[in-house]
Amino acid sequence: MVSNKNILIAQGGGPTNVINQSLVGIIQQENNYKSKILGSINGVNGIINNRFISLNKISDNDLKIIANTPGAALGSTRDKPDKKYCKEILTILQNKKISKFYYIGGNDSSDSLRIISEYAKDIKYNLQCFLIPNTIDNDLVCNDHTPGFGSAAKYVAQLFSGINYDVKSLPGVYLGIVMGRHAGWIAAAGELANQNGSHVHKILLPEVPFDETKFLNGISNDVEKDGFSVVIASEGLKNSSGELYSASKVKDSFGHTQLGGLAPKLAELVNKNLNIKYHWSVSDYLQRSARHISSKTDVEQAIAVGEVAANMAADAKSGYMPIIKRLGNEPYKWEIDVGDLNEIANKEKVLPDNFISNCGFRITDEGVSYLSPLIQGESYPKYKNGLPAYEQLDLHF
Amino acid sequence: MVSNKNILIAQGGGPTNVINQSLVGIIQQENNYKSKILGSINGVNGIINNRFISLNKISDNDLKIIANTPGAALGSTRDKPDKKYCKEILTILQNKKISKFYYIGGNDSSDSLRIISEYAKDIKYNLQCFLIPNTIDNDLVCNDHTPGFGSAAKYVAQLFSGINYDVKSLPGVYLGIVMGRHAGWIAAAGELANQNGSHVHKILLPEVPFDETKFLNGISNDVEKDGFSVVIASEGLKNSSGELYSASKVKDSFGHTQLGGLAPKLAELVNKNLNIKYHWSVSDYLQRSARHISSKTDVEQAIAVGEVAANMAADAKSGYMPIIKRLGNEPYKWEIDVGDLNEIANKEKVLPDNFISNCGFRITDEGVSYLSPLIQGESYPKYKNGLPAYEQLDLHF
Repeated sequence: MVSNKNILIAQGGGPTNVINQSLVGIIQQENNYKSKILGSINGVNGIINNRFISLNKISDNDLKIIANTPGAALGSTRDKPDKKYCKEILTILQNKKISKFYYIGGNDSSDSLRIISEYAKDIKYNLQCFLIPNTIDNDLVCNDHTPGFGSAAKYVAQLFSGINYDVKSLPGVYLGIVMGRHAGWIAAAGELANQNGSHVHKILLPEVPFDETKFLNGISNDVEKDGFSVVIASEGLKNSSGELYSASKVKDSFGHTQLGGLAPKLAELVNKNLNIKYHWSVSDYLQRSARHISSKTDVEQAIAVGEVAANMAADAKSGYMPIIKRLGNEPYKWEIDVGDLNEIANKEKVLPDNFISNCGFRITDEGVSYLSPLIQGESYPKYKNGLPAYEQLDLHF
Repeated sequence: MVSNKNILIAQGGGPTNVINQSLVGIIQQENNYKSKILGSINGVNGIINNRFISLNKISDNDLKIIANTPGAALGSTRDKPDKKYCKEILTILQNKKISKFYYIGGNDSSDSLRIISEYAKDIKYNLQCFLIPNTIDNDLVCNDHTPGFGSAAKYVAQLFSGINYDVKSLPGVYLGIVMGRHAGWIAAAGELANQNGSHVHKILLPEVPFDETKFLNGISNDVEKDGFSVVIASEGLKNSSGELYSASKVKDSFGHTQLGGLAPKLAELVNKNLNIKYHWSVSDYLQRSARHISSKTDVEQAIAVGEVAANMAADAKSGYMPIIKRLGNEPYKWEIDVGDLNEIANKEKVLPDNFISNCGFRITDEGVSYLSPLIQGESYPKYKNGLPAYEQLDLHF
């Protein structure tokens, strides 16, 4: 058994409602190994600003509460380290004699970690780097899906199932905007509502160039047939030139455009051309912080990727990622495998063609078979005062 | 025991996620009385268009499913009958020998029913009219609160509790828009998140004229103190002249302005003046269709108002409403009383001054004491394929 290692955990990128399950999975395993566990506050930003916290002495009860609270318990960051930033990080990690660095996050975090891992290799610093995948975007390659996605998918599917009955009562067109800048995974999950007899009529994906005329004709047909139309749109919907169909001018620190103007733009299009009553919602962070409707499957997998990473006998030559592998669908079976960061970083997994229906507005049976197992099972948090019992552990700020 | 009466049930206005609990409560009681139960499709609109359905032979199992499905199972309407419309309704109800008319809805439905009830009285038609209160708006007078509100309140409180942890992880300003055109009840419920240690910094109410400078200064202080700011805004936020702070130009059939432009407007205000990262959500129908997080207290009360109305020994001189009366807070106790439609229709209950903090941005302890009992208890629906088991009973369309 490895013992008395110094290990560091950080969280980066947009949180999910199971991100702290992975954090706690690592802490519990590393406690078993008697490692000295540090957390950095707000991801890589906390490293260069020397903001660390000891994670060894948190009680089991507090760990349970952290695990079931949405948001990143250690704080997150959108910082994307450049060469100089990475070298600073490595100097600090060397000073602290860190031998293992776990970075919990998604696509941007994987690239940060890859760079750090490469530099460590260059200077022959024996640092094991693990990306613990966690993002609602499900856009990492070389894995079946990412922890965090299943719960977002469950949230979105239940949302449009409920909305469908509401809109059916007071007919009109409903436009619901969900996250997904480049990949339509989250929007696609709305198709699952139709498994239970709901009517989600259209799913607008970033993978399918938006055609206004086809869309408007489709809406008219839905309304004629069912009396109403429920539309899910990915925030990253693009026109035929590949430009965002609508975007504000604000950019985040990665240079990503901050989105948000899509709902009013689609609503105006419907109103101007069809003169049908409409309503719209933008669920934004709700998709990743609604811990009360987490998928049980997702919760279990988020714990597993943390635990398994702590047990991986990885060498220090590169960065690694514990990945979820699907072994079968009926019954659904999975295991954790090992992925190489070099093959993962800077790549983006979009919906495969065979998941998108011919009309471009729906998800195929193959897509449903892929998505459905990920939302199975409920994992209710404890309640306190009528609300999920989240707690602030004052780990950050 | 009264028997073989012809009774009619309809649903009007915006549905809630417990509106069908009331419907089923009435059906079950009237079945005991061996009444002939008709439902009209899409509220009063279904009456004048002669769209009726028999509700006697629905199985207990189906009734359970209807009760737990959001949206109005009979379909709803925004029609607001005028004199001619009401006279048509009465002619049809007389032809069908209806002796009791239950209209499940909120403020607009109460006024429709009052007019029908008055006309019936004028022509000496012995029609008992009952408004079964059901609205997330909680804006009916002469009652403690309306069924439907408690579940919307629970939804909003959990929403901002989760959001708070997400925003804390990746600091910025969060703007969450909730329903409430004239009364800030739903927004006020966000204060309950703070009972569990969350940070909901500001609640923008329609009752408090919006002061941009005070708001911006407040946000700056929040960010300085906590690193982030979470803001809940009622869609009906008004400026000092009583005009909507932001509104689209679309109006519904009641002449109400369809709202929606508030989020981008507030976001622009923050961005232009403070240059802080922001995100926003518009939860819209999500607040009233999220059956999976209904308040157990609300579910019980929604059933009770239906059941009790069916048992009310009301005369036919006027319209009535079963109202929830609060008997005590610790422990919370309630009973159903009888209200007079003439005192209820065309009035709107807004937040009392003593529920609004001196700064105008928060809810007082008195407000919290009022709100807290209404969100207590969980009432989980059954799940099917990983989603709440709602079902379409093809009662309408």
